[in-house]
This record gives sequence, structure tokens and C-alpha cells, in this order.
Amino acid sequence: MDADNSIYVGNKPFMNYVTGVVMQFTTKGAQEVIVKARGKFISRAVDIAEVSSKRFLEGQVEPKNIVINSEEFENKEGKRVRVSTIEIVLGKK
Amino acid sequence: MDADNSIYVGNKPFMNYVTGVVMQFTTKGAQEVIVKARGKFISRAVDIAEVSSKRFLEGQVEPKNIVINSEEFENKEGKRVRVSTIEIVLGKK
Repeated sequence: MDADNSIYVGNKPFMNYVTGVVMQFTTKGAQEVIVKARGKFISRAVDIAEVSSKRFLEGQVEPKNIVINSEEFENKEGKRVRVSTIEIVLGKK
Repeated sequence: MDADNSIYVGNKPFMNYVTGVVMQFTTKGAQEVIVKARGKFISRAVDIAEVSSKRFLEGQVEPKNIVINSEEFENKEGKRVRVSTIEIVLGKK
């Protein structure tokens, strides 16, 4: 799958991400779009997936697969830190 | 499935929920535990599922299914509000 079909959720305005998802399906003809987030942005990723599929692409797109995982890394103080991740695969019905 | 196997994530200390999940599997012998959350608590639910399955029950438990959804309701001002939900089904390997 093309990496361009992934949307990484961060601090930008909410509707930027929703528009990004909707445009992938409508103007770029994507069959699947993956909404990805880490840590506190996970709730936001779920909101974006829900608003995109239920309000803007109702009846056309649905969550096909959802994967959660975690990444461990060392922070600046040398302490091991774990952060959760989510990948929500939205696909055409 | 018994409703007792559901853990609703909210404001309580993080480890309360992790302990709740671990205890369901270890002392109550559950085959599945469902971690549920709404809105901003969704990120926390993912953290709880990850810490429970990767740190405390490593090799024994994994996410079996994840469902996202949304609920619409009218708030006090009569405005329609949408809130996202998640259900993470953890199961024995």
C-alpha cells in the first residue's frame, strides 16, 4: 500500500485531518486510508476516523481493521518510556 | 459474555485499571476482558490494554478485536454532540 494513504494525527486543526481522509477517498480514488497516531493523539485519531466515515463518507467507508501497539524508547534522562500507537484502516464498503 | 468482564476507563488512577484487567485474567480465570472508553479516555484505554498485555501478561494475552463507534446525544443547550467510543477485547493466547 502506498505510504501516501497514511494520515498522521497531531496538533493541526481537527478538520485538516478529516479533509485529508475524505480527499484521499474522493479526489485521489484511494481504496484504503490509514489514520495513525501515538499517545494522547489516539483519541483524536478515533474521532477523525468516526467523523470521516460516519458524517462525510456515510455508507461509503468503514473501519476495516484497527491495530494497537506500543513503542519503547529512552527519553533524555535515559529512562525507558513506552508510548501506545494506533492504526485505523478505513476502507471502501 | 459476562458483563463483569468489562472495564470502563475513566478518571481513576491508571494502575487501578491495569490491576483490574490483570486480576480478571489471573484470579477470576476470564478468557476475555473488554476495555471500554469514550472520548478523551480512549488514549488511556489503549495504554491500559497495552500495559496489561505487554508488561503484566506478556505472552499470555493479546488484543483479539477492537471496535470503534460513536454515540450522538443532545447536550444541555440542545445541541447534537457526537462522542467516539472504543472497545478493546483482550483474550488469552
